[in-house]
Amino acid sequence: MKLTNLIGERFKETPSDCVIESHALMLRGGYMKYVANGIYSSLPPLRRITKKLEQIIREEMDALDGQEVQFPVVLPASLWQESGRYESVGSELMRLNDRNGSPLVLGMTHEEAAVHLVRDYGSTYSRYPFMFYQIQTKFRDEARPRAGLIRVREFTMKDAYSFHTSMEDLNAYYLRCHQAYERIFARAGIPEVLSVASDSGMMGGSLSHEFMLLTPAGEDSLVLCPSCGYRANREAAESIPLPCPQEEEAPLTLVETPAVHTIEELCSFLGTSARQICKAVVYQKNRDDSYVVLFLRGDLDVNETKLTNYLGEEIHPARITPDCGLHAGYIGPCGLDSSITVLYDNSLEGAVNLSCGANREAFHYTGLCMERDCPGARYHDFAKAVEGGICPSCKKHTLTLSRGIEVGNIFQLGDKYTRAMHMQYTDAEGVSHYPVMGCYGIGVGRLAASVCEARHDDCGPIWPVSIAPWQVHLCCMRSDNQEVHAAADRLYEELTKAGVEVLYDDRNVSAGILFSDADLLGLPIRLIMSPRNLKDNCVEMVLRRDKSDASKPSLDEAIPRVKAKIKELMAELSPES
Amino acid sequence: MKLTNLIGERFKETPSDCVIESHALMLRGGYMKYVANGIYSSLPPLRRITKKLEQIIREEMDALDGQEVQFPVVLPASLWQESGRYESVGSELMRLNDRNGSPLVLGMTHEEAAVHLVRDYGSTYSRYPFMFYQIQTKFRDEARPRAGLIRVREFTMKDAYSFHTSMEDLNAYYLRCHQAYERIFARAGIPEVLSVASDSGMMGGSLSHEFMLLTPAGEDSLVLCPSCGYRANREAAESIPLPCPQEEEAPLTLVETPAVHTIEELCSFLGTSARQICKAVVYQKNRDDSYVVLFLRGDLDVNETKLTNYLGEEIHPARITPDCGLHAGYIGPCGLDSSITVLYDNSLEGAVNLSCGANREAFHYTGLCMERDCPGARYHDFAKAVEGGICPSCKKHTLTLSRGIEVGNIFQLGDKYTRAMHMQYTDAEGVSHYPVMGCYGIGVGRLAASVCEARHDDCGPIWPVSIAPWQVHLCCMRSDNQEVHAAADRLYEELTKAGVEVLYDDRNVSAGILFSDADLLGLPIRLIMSPRNLKDNCVEMVLRRDKSDASKPSLDEAIPRVKAKIKELMAELSPES
Repeated sequence: MKLTNLIGERFKETPSDCVIESHALMLRGGYMKYVANGIYSSLPPLRRITKKLEQIIREEMDALDGQEVQFPVVLPASLWQESGRYESVGSELMRLNDRNGSPLVLGMTHEEAAVHLVRDYGSTYSRYPFMFYQIQTKFRDEARPRAGLIRVREFTMKDAYSFHTSMEDLNAYYLRCHQAYERIFARAGIPEVLSVASDSGMMGGSLSHEFMLLTPAGEDSLVLCPSCGYRANREAAESIPLPCPQEEEAPLTLVETPAVHTIEELCSFLGTSARQICKAVVYQKNRDDSYVVLFLRGDLDVNETKLTNYLGEEIHPARITPDCGLHAGYIGPCGLDSSITVLYDNSLEGAVNLSCGANREAFHYTGLCMERDCPGARYHDFAKAVEGGICPSCKKHTLTLSRGIEVGNIFQLGDKYTRAMHMQYTDAEGVSHYPVMGCYGIGVGRLAASVCEARHDDCGPIWPVSIAPWQVHLCCMRSDNQEVHAAADRLYEELTKAGVEVLYDDRNVSAGILFSDADLLGLPIRLIMSPRNLKDNCVEMVLRRDKSDASKPSLDEAIPRVKAKIKELMAELSPES
Repeated sequence: MKLTNLIGERFKETPSDCVIESHALMLRGGYMKYVANGIYSSLPPLRRITKKLEQIIREEMDALDGQEVQFPVVLPASLWQESGRYESVGSELMRLNDRNGSPLVLGMTHEEAAVHLVRDYGSTYSRYPFMFYQIQTKFRDEARPRAGLIRVREFTMKDAYSFHTSMEDLNAYYLRCHQAYERIFARAGIPEVLSVASDSGMMGGSLSHEFMLLTPAGEDSLVLCPSCGYRANREAAESIPLPCPQEEEAPLTLVETPAVHTIEELCSFLGTSARQICKAVVYQKNRDDSYVVLFLRGDLDVNETKLTNYLGEEIHPARITPDCGLHAGYIGPCGLDSSITVLYDNSLEGAVNLSCGANREAFHYTGLCMERDCPGARYHDFAKAVEGGICPSCKKHTLTLSRGIEVGNIFQLGDKYTRAMHMQYTDAEGVSHYPVMGCYGIGVGRLAASVCEARHDDCGPIWPVSIAPWQVHLCCMRSDNQEVHAAADRLYEELTKAGVEVLYDDRNVSAGILFSDADLLGLPIRLIMSPRNLKDNCVEMVLRRDKSDASKPSLDEAIPRVKAKIKELMAELSPES
């Protein structure tokens, strides 16, 4: 198509609210338009990208014997009540009422709808296994939408659901799906995406993986071991505490510590290190606001995901009131109100000679020895893994932290949903069982933005040929020159006739404007027709990703040369290459 | 794919709530599953149909220089407030609030979002005209969802929006779009779809057309003139009253009419006909419940669409209370409370010697002469056109009424939205103007159901090859016979390799079950492998639409014969054929 007809505007200035580059480039390039917080309209270039991504995903899902279906965006609350998630999921689940007052929700994921669809069909073992998927709009009322298409409220997602009669079968299918995801990301142009073990969160189930694009712009924190290849989301990564130093036990001693409130102040006051502090972090349960005090080593942070999973319910940071029995800044394990839920992190097990709060304004203890002074304590893993920490897999002190964008996820759900929603099948002996499920998601818009984040330069995105809105950007320089314009017109027609997707810019504007717009649109192959090239009976062909990769095929050769280049670029993206 | 892997169940019994056949067949054939009132999940056969329909629509929209975009399903209320529709549209517009209390709506149509998308882009005349479209989920909180996919609450719709700098340009584009719609319906297998003039309703604007599939199952009422080809939705059709009989004027006479409440009772009491009655129909304005009394000839019905358009606001049938000043059953034009809005239909203009209520319990007048007794009355068209009525175009008494399903619509919106939302462009002289818009909709699911309604027999749908979920249904009879099964397997593989879409049924079940399932799935070409056919080294090829159209190509010829038949069936659907 002609650029002059393309709706949407391109501009130079980075909008002030853009925290990551893909967001800025996709606004500046006329890919999308802000409609409301976390809600965008897609302009034609982005829609062309997402259609190609959807087609890649479709092909890979079909190759897994997936059957495409479509669930409603608007679901009756009753379905989510069946699974228990109507109650358990927070306000990111959009709840609404229809004209008759019937409660509805906007689907943010479709496990319930999936079970509902095949609850009858899946009543006999011989129909298993099966998988179906949809590519459909979802809504999640995020508290803090950010970073353009990376974290939005409304998004298009491919979600797939598989059903099995055994965990073995689910495991085998899960692996196939894992491989299909690797192919999808390779075909989309980001083969470097890694899978990491993840926390299953509100989905339930046991095993799950996230597919992560490593980038400092990512909002997920990952724990990687370069030594053995261990990879996990920091939410899920086990934290293995360093062994406690062996020391002789000192007596528990009350120390007056006026105006000492923070760990840093306490370290400085006592001349000790954070590793020798027993730190208290206080939460309240969402359900009843009752207090939960978690003790851990002073140099560690709480992994709230682990804490929530352990408690089996949602929590929030505590508001400590004067009459709640807790003394902010002076909370310790000895003499704490026994009605409060107290938890201990593994990092404290066996520790001696720690300092801690004395549950009394302006007083701390020194010489806290866990076994001696907290005899009934049980220890669990509640801490965040740290840079340089011990790898849970190879046990070396090699852990590194990275940031990443989650571009897909796969979950083994087990029978959580089938059991809650009474879906059963009869086996060959006539015995009833709950089938087990897997579910597999990819956010299409986030994937597009992730590719942009991974493949761009200062001037704009560098779209892989497989998902580029068009394959070729044809620039006509000096379109006021009739001969040049006519030659460019001919080239446009011939390319189009040859099945090449061409965006043709024949505006009579400066080369600077032509090229900066071409950079923002990021098409892999650029062709430049100019008075000089016409005189030489050739056209200039330049790659967006490396402008030094330039050649000047003659006009006779141009079409086959362009087609060969497209083929070559596509071949690079083949998962087998 | 193999039928044994296809999710969804087929069954024989018509569900009790099905009022039309497409609804029953699409449930019985495993095309869709009920989720909530007016909300369905699509199973794979339906999703395959809708994908093909979407592709046909896409191609025709692209051929009109349409650019595909995607708008959000969830829109900020502020956009609808800008156009004024947040207030003016009734409870079919789903209103909701997000976690911060911000008001949102679910998009039921996207004029506001369309203007928002190009308000900046369209600021200069040189960028016009342009058209863009999306294929996206919409939600409309219908009071009475019914008839399966014909009237649902959630649906997938293609909606297109064009922008122009002159009405001439809009008119020309509108015509092209009209032709594209005819091609779409022809390619989808229902070339008999007719366009009718329609009422623009809540969309606003002047000219609009609906594309109607004539069928007794339709919920729209149409007025057609077989003589001149005039066609209109009954909502929009002009009603031309028969000329009033010329009689000598009788005096206005009060008559006691005890226990006479209805037109029928009055006719029988007075020995007159409904045509000689001045009937009152009472409404209340939604805004303030004030009363509107409409008088029209006793044999005619009120066209509420015309009434609403005339008043410019919503109304509802009146609740007549004892103290409201109206006497139900005895309302007439003479002596009516002057604070009430009174309207007169064209059918009363110049009428003499009518009977009417006397605004007094148990009394009527006879001898009502409109000009004499209601001197100030002004007459408008508020009546429904009737069977045998006068055609507004050729003036013959030839009107017929039909029922139809609206499968698409096109509207000339003028500057209603651009003006309300302050979208302007500057012309070559630097003068600002509001652009004019057209919008063009097709409901994808309703189109699928309409094709089913138009193309089915008692046993199931008869899908046109262009949108059939698969092209060929391969039945293996006696799949317990290894040789037969192997031959059918080979045929399945060869067809698939040849690019034919095959649904392969190799279940070891009776021919009755094989064929009734094949009927419900409605694929255009059926191939039957059986012991006998194998012995004759052939396969039986039968058309779903006419089972007497059967042949027995040899196994060597089968693939080319099937491909030729597919090509032939596709050619029949070409809009040019």
